[in-house]
Amino acid sequence: MKKIAVFTSGGDSPGMNACLRAVVRTAIFRELEVYGVYRGYEGMIDGDIKRMYTHSVSNIVQRGGTILKSARSKEFMTPAGRKKAYENLAKHGIEGIVAIGGDGTFTGAKIFFEEYGIPTVGCPGTIDNDIYGTDYTIGFDTAVNTALAAIDKIRDTAASHDRIFFIEVMGRDAGFIGVECGIGGGAEFVMVPETKTDLDSVVKDLKNLRKTKTSSVIVVAEGDDAGSADVIMEKVKTKLNDNTKEFKVTTLGHIQRGGNPTARDRVLASRCGMAAVDGLLAGKQNCMAGVTNQEVVYTPFQDCIGKEKPIIPDHLELIKVLSI
Amino acid sequence: MKKIAVFTSGGDSPGMNACLRAVVRTAIFRELEVYGVYRGYEGMIDGDIKRMYTHSVSNIVQRGGTILKSARSKEFMTPAGRKKAYENLAKHGIEGIVAIGGDGTFTGAKIFFEEYGIPTVGCPGTIDNDIYGTDYTIGFDTAVNTALAAIDKIRDTAASHDRIFFIEVMGRDAGFIGVECGIGGGAEFVMVPETKTDLDSVVKDLKNLRKTKTSSVIVVAEGDDAGSADVIMEKVKTKLNDNTKEFKVTTLGHIQRGGNPTARDRVLASRCGMAAVDGLLAGKQNCMAGVTNQEVVYTPFQDCIGKEKPIIPDHLELIKVLSI
Amino acid sequence: MKKIAVFTSGGDSPGMNACLRAVVRTAIFRELEVYGVYRGYEGMIDGDIKRMYTHSVSNIVQRGGTILKSARSKEFMTPAGRKKAYENLAKHGIEGIVAIGGDGTFTGAKIFFEEYGIPTVGCPGTIDNDIYGTDYTIGFDTAVNTALAAIDKIRDTAASHDRIFFIEVMGRDAGFIGVECGIGGGAEFVMVPETKTDLDSVVKDLKNLRKTKTSSVIVVAEGDDAGSADVIMEKVKTKLNDNTKEFKVTTLGHIQRGGNPTARDRVLASRCGMAAVDGLLAGKQNCMAGVTNQEVVYTPFQDCIGKEKPIIPDHLELIKVLSI
Amino acid sequence: MKKIAVFTSGGDSPGMNACLRAVVRTAIFRELEVYGVYRGYEGMIDGDIKRMYTHSVSNIVQRGGTILKSARSKEFMTPAGRKKAYENLAKHGIEGIVAIGGDGTFTGAKIFFEEYGIPTVGCPGTIDNDIYGTDYTIGFDTAVNTALAAIDKIRDTAASHDRIFFIEVMGRDAGFIGVECGIGGGAEFVMVPETKTDLDSVVKDLKNLRKTKTSSVIVVAEGDDAGSADVIMEKVKTKLNDNTKEFKVTTLGHIQRGGNPTARDRVLASRCGMAAVDGLLAGKQNCMAGVTNQEVVYTPFQDCIGKEKPIIPDHLELIKVLSI
Repeated sequence: MKKIAVFTSGGDSPGMNACLRAVVRTAIFRELEVYGVYRGYEGMIDGDIKRMYTHSVSNIVQRGGTILKSARSKEFMTPAGRKKAYENLAKHGIEGIVAIGGDGTFTGAKIFFEEYGIPTVGCPGTIDNDIYGTDYTIGFDTAVNTALAAIDKIRDTAASHDRIFFIEVMGRDAGFIGVECGIGGGAEFVMVPETKTDLDSVVKDLKNLRKTKTSSVIVVAEGDDAGSADVIMEKVKTKLNDNTKEFKVTTLGHIQRGGNPTARDRVLASRCGMAAVDGLLAGKQNCMAGVTNQEVVYTPFQDCIGKEKPIIPDHLELIKVLSI
Repeated sequence: MKKIAVFTSGGDSPGMNACLRAVVRTAIFRELEVYGVYRGYEGMIDGDIKRMYTHSVSNIVQRGGTILKSARSKEFMTPAGRKKAYENLAKHGIEGIVAIGGDGTFTGAKIFFEEYGIPTVGCPGTIDNDIYGTDYTIGFDTAVNTALAAIDKIRDTAASHDRIFFIEVMGRDAGFIGVECGIGGGAEFVMVPETKTDLDSVVKDLKNLRKTKTSSVIVVAEGDDAGSADVIMEKVKTKLNDNTKEFKVTTLGHIQRGGNPTARDRVLASRCGMAAVDGLLAGKQNCMAGVTNQEVVYTPFQDCIGKEKPIIPDHLELIKVLSI
Repeated sequence: MKKIAVFTSGGDSPGMNACLRAVVRTAIFRELEVYGVYRGYEGMIDGDIKRMYTHSVSNIVQRGGTILKSARSKEFMTPAGRKKAYENLAKHGIEGIVAIGGDGTFTGAKIFFEEYGIPTVGCPGTIDNDIYGTDYTIGFDTAVNTALAAIDKIRDTAASHDRIFFIEVMGRDAGFIGVECGIGGGAEFVMVPETKTDLDSVVKDLKNLRKTKTSSVIVVAEGDDAGSADVIMEKVKTKLNDNTKEFKVTTLGHIQRGGNPTARDRVLASRCGMAAVDGLLAGKQNCMAGVTNQEVVYTPFQDCIGKEKPIIPDHLELIKVLSI
Repeated sequence: MKKIAVFTSGGDSPGMNACLRAVVRTAIFRELEVYGVYRGYEGMIDGDIKRMYTHSVSNIVQRGGTILKSARSKEFMTPAGRKKAYENLAKHGIEGIVAIGGDGTFTGAKIFFEEYGIPTVGCPGTIDNDIYGTDYTIGFDTAVNTALAAIDKIRDTAASHDRIFFIEVMGRDAGFIGVECGIGGGAEFVMVPETKTDLDSVVKDLKNLRKTKTSSVIVVAEGDDAGSADVIMEKVKTKLNDNTKEFKVTTLGHIQRGGNPTARDRVLASRCGMAAVDGLLAGKQNCMAGVTNQEVVYTPFQDCIGKEKPIIPDHLELIKVLSI
């Protein structure tokens, strides 16, 4: 193997740049040529591909976002799109690919590999942490810390006013961000997609809590089965029927995708990036480089996408016990 | 004067604790007894008043929110409510009052002074900066920096995806937060209540900008005449009619009220707090202690509430020039 | 078991409060009485012990330091001191102990248990991460992120001036902080106690790097065998003998011990705190509750203190490869 | 005027990039050509000068350091050096200069203007705030907030251990950073170059304070007449002679120069940058654009360098009163 390509795809996550830096520098250290594909599969189809050097990734380890930019590509879902992409890679003599992204990215990479056979190794870049085969995904730790800093601020004002705050965090299909924010933010309740939300029970507990606490924080993952934070707030307000309290909603939104990556995300991103290149050189393909139990592991894309990754069981217990 | 009371009222703002600390410690340094009234006028009516000591305000200079809590009081708007409040203060022998809050707080303080004659000096505690008689209000600088940090994060993700982001910041009646965030965040446009928003002109400029820039950030104050950020985004999207771009909205919300106060807010809060007590001792009443042109000044409540405070004129020009 | 005591001891670390909160609330949830011992073993000897309630630990999950305070106790190293400590605990009917601290704390706890037999479970509270039996210690993640934020700032000024910066981070016996900061901060070199530092080799590499890079950051753990950052800087400066460059040293110092704990530290602290109480109830004693491979594990104090915890092997390789 | 040059010089400060962006974009908006000179006067002598465009300053408003880099130049102090610098500017047809830096920068600019007559306007870029003619300098607010965040962290650990902490902040000739950090950080004492430090009096007050407070924070500006923080700590320790307390020193160092600029610094930098260009166009020369009493003012370099800028008088009183 002499030439590899690297790209970022899907929703961006903090640490993608640190991962990219690791891919580029490891490749050069191992005496490979490395090419950056801009805007994910979209740029692969458009031939937006440039040689990268050591200095191309200087001073980005600490930056949010991705200097290669990211996009979602409809055209890559078509055989014609993938053919164009292949031809562009072939033109540059690319013999291996590192794909940084989430499950959409890996789904595309798997199909592309099956059709064209260019060895591909993925790196788990998504804030949602919903990828099987790695304890944490790149960006998750930063997103949780960003959300938590926001919750800390809201607690200041909640406590000053005796308010009940509903805070919506990211997580359309997975409650990892919600659960860690709930524990770390000292939330009274956490509502996540993985568990059935019973608002009557919440209201009952809330009434009990209100005897000892004057303000409450409730963390809601955007994908909760009981609805968005707005909807849940209205329902709880109606059910609780307590005019002495104010009910407020804050939807944290896109701030959770940006920001300088945390130490943990930079280290994870660096390990995955190096492991992806070293994996390619060792003959790995159609799989993702992740870190499980502190060690680098390679997991077939099929499992990354298809297998379920559960919330750590004691975490929900923690929220219940610690919110008294 | 031997005994004074202090309270925080209205929406809380970062730095209220630093101000409270300054009031308490200055009072004790000047050999006064000082009492804290909890939950603003509400606690004054309920008699929720406690003696404060040096150590009561230890380790709070850096904390958001207010340890005295805050509330809005409907009962204080009635003569009967104010009578109860007066009786509670009289019971403790209170001869002077420091009121920390915004225009609602000062309106109440002014009426109360006119009816009962207890000398009162205010401190400008509100994130909105819309109080005449002080260059900045306590909490404004922190709110702007919090919003700006959020905008920086959103820029990371906006730039990674070629997106147009509409970010709603606080400011129902005043655009100070919006304007400073716009300049500091490198926003392409800022929409504030003080100026007429012309969406057609924005769309025209946006089309021009799109030739050189791939992502844009538009800051919207919540009180803008063209509507909320959601509404404006929909209108711009329709008018721009460009399917190659994604349009996103983030409403920053209550995070802007919390957080550790900045240096500037702590210093301002400390100055105003000391000046309020020293003002009472010097015979000031029915006025606010603020800082203008780096000096402490006392402004009648009437002017604080009634006079307009304009945005610094070159600020709107700055946004226009720097967004090219 | 009806009554337990909890204390923090040794150097404080961010997350101790979150751990304490978890101990107190879990104990109350499990219907135990819980007592806080102030100032570690020192307060145990002085009888500085108070009943704790749910609200005693409200609003501390996010706070650095420890509300129980910490101290190092010489008297506890004597049999007479430990006897006093035991008598004070006996007076309150304490039947179980949770000890939050590092290896000094656990050494004391082990001896005390062997002498007096009160079941004790520890929680790993130290920024250094040098405790066997847990992947990470409480406070480590925060310390690394604090140091990293400082390194990011120094990189700004280093890059503006073409400087070589030597940054000393904490770690008298262990290089965990140094290594993670080195990877995360994009350092050119990392010097830690676990490896022999060869300054001649560093100077040689530095000369090579200087051809492509104008500024460099070198992270030095305080316990490195080649000396403190000051000493190393002087040696490198002499050996390199390049008058075109400026050499600067920054010793980060005690800022690494404070600050709001990160999400990871809050979650870890909460898990360990709950596990310590549940461990006591399940008959555990003379051991520490830690988290390894995402699961709670109990490790005998003997092993926590005595067994070596190595740096993750690929981490040193990462620094070498990524600094090109 | 058709072509202007801009450079940053002296110690870098956060906000220099925001200022540079404002200079470049205002120049282009006013239809000037603008050239960036790298590494200050050094690059002017070396001819390291490049045309700048709108996009050259994209996405830097929030970045610490200076993308033009900075340096101190000995050669520029010689007539021969300045002649080379002039010839390089002449080669590019430069008719006006914006100089971003502190008093060293302005001293050079003044001499250069007097010798070669190219109109020059300065912008006050230094963290020290010791420039007459502007209420604040660009970078000061960020430096204070960085130092204050560090002091907050140290307070966490100081309070957990009953320690006396001496924290050295920047300020060789001026105590502005020290004073604002002292007020904002709730320091018990602040020692700055502008006032005579009387350690006997400090020790006496410290003994009194120790009756009510268990931990203390003392802020020392690096240029204090009583010595560095290390030296002062040793003296106080000897004089106080209290073995029950631990004495610690932290020297904050270069972290104070880096980091993302605060809102206030970005706005100030933007105003000064625009005013510098507009000043050149309006015929200003040999002067600095600053902001006093919220308005842009131009002050002759001579005054900026030569006139004293005193600490706001009530600030020292504040520290004394509020530390009880």
